[in-house]
Parts: sequence; C-alpha cells; structure tokens
Amino acid sequence: MQDTIFDTNAPFDAAVLAQSFAGERPADIADALDALDGEEAAAIVAHLPPELAVDALEQSGIDGADEIIALLPRAHGATLLDAMSADRAADMFRAMEEPACSELLALVQPDVRKTVEGLLAYPESSVGAYMTTEFVAVPADWTVAQVLHHIRMVERTRETVYSVYVTDPAKHSLVAAVTLRRLISADPNANVLTAAPHRKPLTIGAQERQEEAARLISKYDLLAIPVTDNRQHLIGIVTVDDVIDSMVERQTAEVQRFGGVEALDEPYLRMSFWAMIRKRAGWLCALFLSEMLTASAMQGFEGELEKAIVLTLFIPLIMSSGGNSGSQATSLLIRALALREIELRDWWRVALRELPTGIMLGAILGVIGIVRITLWQKFHIYDYGVHWPLVALTVGTALVGIVTFGSLVGSMLPFGLQRLGFDPASASAPFVATLVDVTGLVIYFGVAAIILHGTLL
Amino acid sequence: MQDTIFDTNAPFDAAVLAQSFAGERPADIADALDALDGEEAAAIVAHLPPELAVDALEQSGIDGADEIIALLPRAHGATLLDAMSADRAADMFRAMEEPACSELLALVQPDVRKTVEGLLAYPESSVGAYMTTEFVAVPADWTVAQVLHHIRMVERTRETVYSVYVTDPAKHSLVAAVTLRRLISADPNANVLTAAPHRKPLTIGAQERQEEAARLISKYDLLAIPVTDNRQHLIGIVTVDDVIDSMVERQTAEVQRFGGVEALDEPYLRMSFWAMIRKRAGWLCALFLSEMLTASAMQGFEGELEKAIVLTLFIPLIMSSGGNSGSQATSLLIRALALREIELRDWWRVALRELPTGIMLGAILGVIGIVRITLWQKFHIYDYGVHWPLVALTVGTALVGIVTFGSLVGSMLPFGLQRLGFDPASASAPFVATLVDVTGLVIYFGVAAIILHGTLL
Repeated sequence: MQDTIFDTNAPFDAAVLAQSFAGERPADIADALDALDGEEAAAIVAHLPPELAVDALEQSGIDGADEIIALLPRAHGATLLDAMSADRAADMFRAMEEPACSELLALVQPDVRKTVEGLLAYPESSVGAYMTTEFVAVPADWTVAQVLHHIRMVERTRETVYSVYVTDPAKHSLVAAVTLRRLISADPNANVLTAAPHRKPLTIGAQERQEEAARLISKYDLLAIPVTDNRQHLIGIVTVDDVIDSMVERQTAEVQRFGGVEALDEPYLRMSFWAMIRKRAGWLCALFLSEMLTASAMQGFEGELEKAIVLTLFIPLIMSSGGNSGSQATSLLIRALALREIELRDWWRVALRELPTGIMLGAILGVIGIVRITLWQKFHIYDYGVHWPLVALTVGTALVGIVTFGSLVGSMLPFGLQRLGFDPASASAPFVATLVDVTGLVIYFGVAAIILHGTLL
Repeated sequence: MQDTIFDTNAPFDAAVLAQSFAGERPADIADALDALDGEEAAAIVAHLPPELAVDALEQSGIDGADEIIALLPRAHGATLLDAMSADRAADMFRAMEEPACSELLALVQPDVRKTVEGLLAYPESSVGAYMTTEFVAVPADWTVAQVLHHIRMVERTRETVYSVYVTDPAKHSLVAAVTLRRLISADPNANVLTAAPHRKPLTIGAQERQEEAARLISKYDLLAIPVTDNRQHLIGIVTVDDVIDSMVERQTAEVQRFGGVEALDEPYLRMSFWAMIRKRAGWLCALFLSEMLTASAMQGFEGELEKAIVLTLFIPLIMSSGGNSGSQATSLLIRALALREIELRDWWRVALRELPTGIMLGAILGVIGIVRITLWQKFHIYDYGVHWPLVALTVGTALVGIVTFGSLVGSMLPFGLQRLGFDPASASAPFVATLVDVTGLVIYFGVAAIILHGTLL
C-alpha cells in the first residue's frame, strides 16, 4: 500500500509538485499537503486544478485546510469555498482566524454565505454543525422512474447516494428513506413510496449532540441518518464517514484526557513547543497543587514519622496502590457510561459492586505486603524492628482500606462528572490518583495509630 | 428516541415477549435479549420467526448470541446458523463453547460448514476473520443491463449494496468496483466497465490486520473495502459498519488498558465478581510487586531519612509529579502512533522534544514548589528548619529531574512496546507511574545528598 506520494527530499517547486498530484487519491494529496508548512501547501494548492484542490481540502484528514485557504489570494480562496460542500466550508470558516474569515465570507456567493451562516449558528458539538447539507430529496408524489431520472441528471456529480429521502410535498417533512437497491428493483411507473420500507426512517434533531448521531448510526448499522429541524423539515444528513472521523477524534481526546493532558488539536510533531507546554502544564500544575495536600498531611503526622521512621518506607507503595485501583475503576466506568451499558441512576449498583471488589483486591495486595515484610525480616534482608509483625499488619490493613477507597472513588468519579454535566471521560488517571493520595495517607496513619498505639507510637 | 422495547417488570412469558418483538428493529431486539439471562433469551428466540431471530442474533450489539444459540435445541440452532451470513456464523462458532460448537458444526448445511471452516482458519485479528463473505460480484463481460437485472433478481434480499465488484471472468481477480449510482446513470447496453471509475479500487489482503482495514476505510471514506486472498481472488468485503463496531471495541479496550485493567470482554454489570477480580488483580499485583522496589529504595536511604525527616514530607508530591508527566507523555504517544502521525523511526525526534518539554514542565512545578515552601516558612505555617532554603532548592531541583525523566520514559515506552511487537496502547498510566517511581526516589535522594551535604545530611 503506497501511502506517501511525496518526495520530501526534492527541492520545492509548487508547480511541479502540483502536477505530480494529478490522478492521486484526494486523501493522499491531503496527507502530502499536511506534511508541508502552510505557505508551501498554499503555493501547491494554487497550482492544482480547482476540483482536485477542493477534493483534497475537503478531506477530514487535513488539519491545516483553513490555514491554506486563508493564505491563498482571497478571490481564489473564495472560489474554492464556493465549490466545497457547505458543511466543509462552514468547518473552514469555523477554524479560520480573522481577518481572513470575514473577508472570505464577504467574497463567497450569496447563497453559499447564507447556508454557511446558517450552519455556523449551530453550537459546535451539535448535529447541525456536523451534518452534510447535500443529500438527495424527492417529493412523495414522484414515480420511481422520475426519481431515477433525477438521480441520473441532477445528482450525477455525487459519487455516493446514501439514500433517497422522500418528503411530503406540502409539509416538507420526511416521509421515507429509499435505498438505490430498492429503487432499481421497483416498478418504474409506481409511486416512489412503493419502494420504501414499511418502517419510518430514524431521524435526529439538529440540536442534539454529535455523539447521539454516532451512537444511532453505529447501533442500527446505518450509512446515514437524516437530520431534522424543529419543524421536522429535513435539513441534512450525518454520514457514516463523518461518524468515523469524529470517533477517531473522540478516541484521541479520550485517551489523552485520561492520561491527564488537555486534548491536542494538532498532530504531536506539529505542535509548537509552547503550545505543547500550555496543553500539559495546566493539568500538571493543577494536580501538583492538589497533591501539595499530601505534604500538609505528612506535616500533620510529623510526630508519628519521627517515632516510627519504618512507616515512611511503605508510603510510596501504599499510595500507588490506591491510585492504581482507582484508575482501574475509573477507566471501566468511563467506557461503561460511554457505551450506555450503565446509566447515571445505576451508581449505587456500581458502588455495591466496587465495595466488595475493592475489599477483595485490597486483601490480595495486603497479604502480598505482609508476606513480603515477613520474608525480608525472617531472611534478615532488612530489620523492621522488634514490632515488625505489627508493622506488617498495619501495611496489610491499610492496603485493604486504601484499595477499597480507591475503587469506590475511582468508580464514582465518572458518575459525579456526568451528574455535573461534564463528560465522564474528562476523568483522568492522575486526577483519580491525586484524589486518593491524601486520603490514603490519612488511612495509613490512622491504621498505624490504632495498631501501633503503645508500641511504636 | 425509544431505545428499550422491553418491560422488565412484567412476569416472564417467552411467547408473549416474542410476539411483542414483531416489527421492532433488530438492534433493539438484540438489546432486549442482551438484558436477559441466556435461558430466558433462548426461550424467546425459540418463539421468534426465524428471519427475525437471525436478524437480531446477527447484530454486533448482542454479546451472548453464541450462548443463546447453544441453549436452543440443536436442530433449531443449526437452522438459524444456516440462515446467518457466513461471517456472523463463524463469529458464533468462534465464541461458542464445546460441545455445542462441534455438535452444531456437524448439523449445519455442508456448504455453510465449508465456508465457516474456511473463515475459522484465519487468525482472530486478521481481515479474513472479520470480512463479510456476502457481496455482489459480476464478470467483466456483462453489460450494465445484465448487472442491474442480476441485482434485481438475485440480490433482492440484500438491503444495502455497497458496491458491485467486477471480476475478470478467467482469472477471478478484481477489476473494478462500481457504485449503484454510476450503474443507474450508465448506458444499459454498454459493458459494465464503462460505468467504472478509471482508478483501480483499493483492496486489502485477508491476512492483514483488522486495524489496517479500518484505517483505509476511514482515510479514504469508503463504505466497504474488497478483500483478496493470496491469488488476488476477491473473497469478501469489510464494510464500514464492521469497522465502526471494531473501533468501539478497540476504544474500550484502549481506555481500559490505559487505566491498568485487562480489557473486559463483557459489560461491567454482567461480569461476575470473580471474573472482575481476575481482570483487575493481575495488573494490580504486578504493579504492586514492582512498586515494592520503592520500599527497597527507601530502605537504602534509611540513613538520610533519619537525619532529615523533612525530606519525607515531599516524597508523595514529587513521586506523583513524575508519574503524571509520564502518563501525559504516554497517552500522547499512544495516539500519535495509533494514528500513524509518528513512525517507530521517529523515536529520537520525540525524545528531542520531550527533553526540553520535560525540563520546562519540571521547572514550572519546581518554582511552584519552592514558592510553596517559602510561603509556609515565612508565614510560620510550618517550620522546615534552619536550612529551609536548601530544602526548597532540593525539592525544586528534584522536580526538574523527575518530571524530565518521567516525560522521557513515558514517551519512549510506547515506542519500546511497538518495537517489541506489542500494541503501544498496552502501556498504562499506572505502569508508567511505577516505572518512574523508583528512579524518582533515587533522583530525589541523590539531589538531596548533593545539596544538603554538610548541612542536614
């Protein structure tokens, strides 16, 4: 499989490169343009035949398409935007910086401007901001032959016809969705509705969230889902390739956030040094500031620390176990909520599962910890003092408490976030660990105070 | 949107429930069956009309389909498997336990058995094990009219025709892929190839990995990609809905593994208690055992700890910062590698980026740490002793070292895993933190030994 069409070692000549792109797949041209800096990419695009330029810039894989258009002469940029599908043009305007954005919006065709402005009015994560406005719709009083003729004549530039949407000629509401396969098999002289399945098509409102469109398309194995406005008029479709693109994006954001980074909007190697620092320093500082509470907690236990230095040896071990069990629980619940296996109201079921699970996992680690201390003591690898059995018991008991606490906090955090209106996937492993750490210390020293009272403490 | 079709409070009556399913969407029936235990679901399926039962059991959203079929009378189960698409039937056999698997395989139609056995021979993560064997193929010497007639007559049960694949009549190799839209617009008496685009269709080998099919479909916005065997014969297609299903599964596995859990193969609430413990205890114990090295490291620094208790106060803070910066870097690199933004050979570029990034992030945290200690000292919140400026300097310097080390280790870990043939996404946040913790302690006490030598130590 040949994926790169571009020799990065040759000297740069926009016209020659543009010529070498002829006949390549738009997605590969997009990749090649993306590997260049904006100025060079714009110089090549200026030399491309307009249809090919539009095909390449419409690819979802190209990150800097808006930048490229903004760098072209305004008239040229406006021509390309006119030729784009309205939803991709709206994406460009959404990403574009001023003054290019306003200047280009003033230059595009009036009807394009009107459609784009309509699309820009939808909130960024809504179905409306994401749908395709190009689809095949026919009135319900047409015959099958009329519809086929329409597809042959009017829609000949469209490579893929996902479905033919049949609307009520008076009310403009969606009546049926007919596949090409059914149209071909139907009697040409019959009404188009004779080719429609008996079940009304699924639809989605333009104000709903994009993830809902993705979920419906994925669940019902659709190639596209029609989008309606609040008067139930058909105004667009969300296609399966848009869903795939947004799933990939969401997956990236989810993994990055779970790792405790603000989601990157550009590929790793294209991010500037300072942009990278900004994306990472925020969370890192927030976590650092919260984690400072551990220093305060430790200061509170200064007396115990001085009397029983041996307790400090297990602090990292015990704290990390709490964080690990918490991040396990959080990652499980983030996905269960995202896949709707679990609803918000199921939180108590989850809590009732995590409680025994945490106790059992903590007990397993506790036993390992006690065995470790016993072995080291018996084989004289290290001397934990005369009260070593009590120290071992403290470590084992604290592990049960901390792992249980970690599992509970980690599992409830995604519910809490969802309840507060955040995406449960904004929980992160470092965030859970930080939440659990301070309490972990308190549990550890609390257990120590009880078990070691009168001996070490 | 009505998603549940099932009143879970009513008394259970399989025949009545089966009747209530008539006219529902297969995906919704699958959901409803999945909410029941296997015996109940099988009882309902036994009462469903066979076509509806097959439609529901073929849904990717249903987890226990193999179990349901195994619980039916063998003859009934075999009839359903006969009626299923060969690839879904193969999925069932792959998941099914013995003796049901062999018994049913002996009972299905000989041609079904042959196809299924062919599919079962492909390794589980290969394209061959995942493709659909039902597709429309026509010889290259047919006319457009012949192809349309074939679709009308032979393929009338097929709801969606992704593309018509044109094969060489002698060599059986794939020549072109034609969309229905182009067929409709073409001259009926012309050869089918006149309707084909001039570009040869993308194909994928049956032995390749599923992710490659997903990547090609997503990159080139395809609805399906044809699969060829090693003689270049067309043997199946991978469709976009299969890709979506596998993306959702992969995303779940990726988030779960990053949280340090073995990927769950069942929904959270359906896992049994012990299965859940098994999935979580393994990683937790492995991490716990590795983290025990921190206790050994601390034991090695016992002398320093006794002399300067003040150093212990910052151990959790410093160690967690290393883990956090590491998990940030790992999550960024896991995605960059998965999206092929970065190749294995780019590891040194990444290392050269992470080095200054880590130093800068460490410096930011270091300054915050120093300010914190200074404020607490100056405002008499806590007394870090006469040498507090040196303690603050130790903490600040150690943070630079540890965050830099964390960023480097975290970013190189996914490369290392990929180099060793593992999925980079098997790296987890707790794993990185554990890797960084021991070295973090060594860095901290090393810095302390240099800065505090002659004063506290």
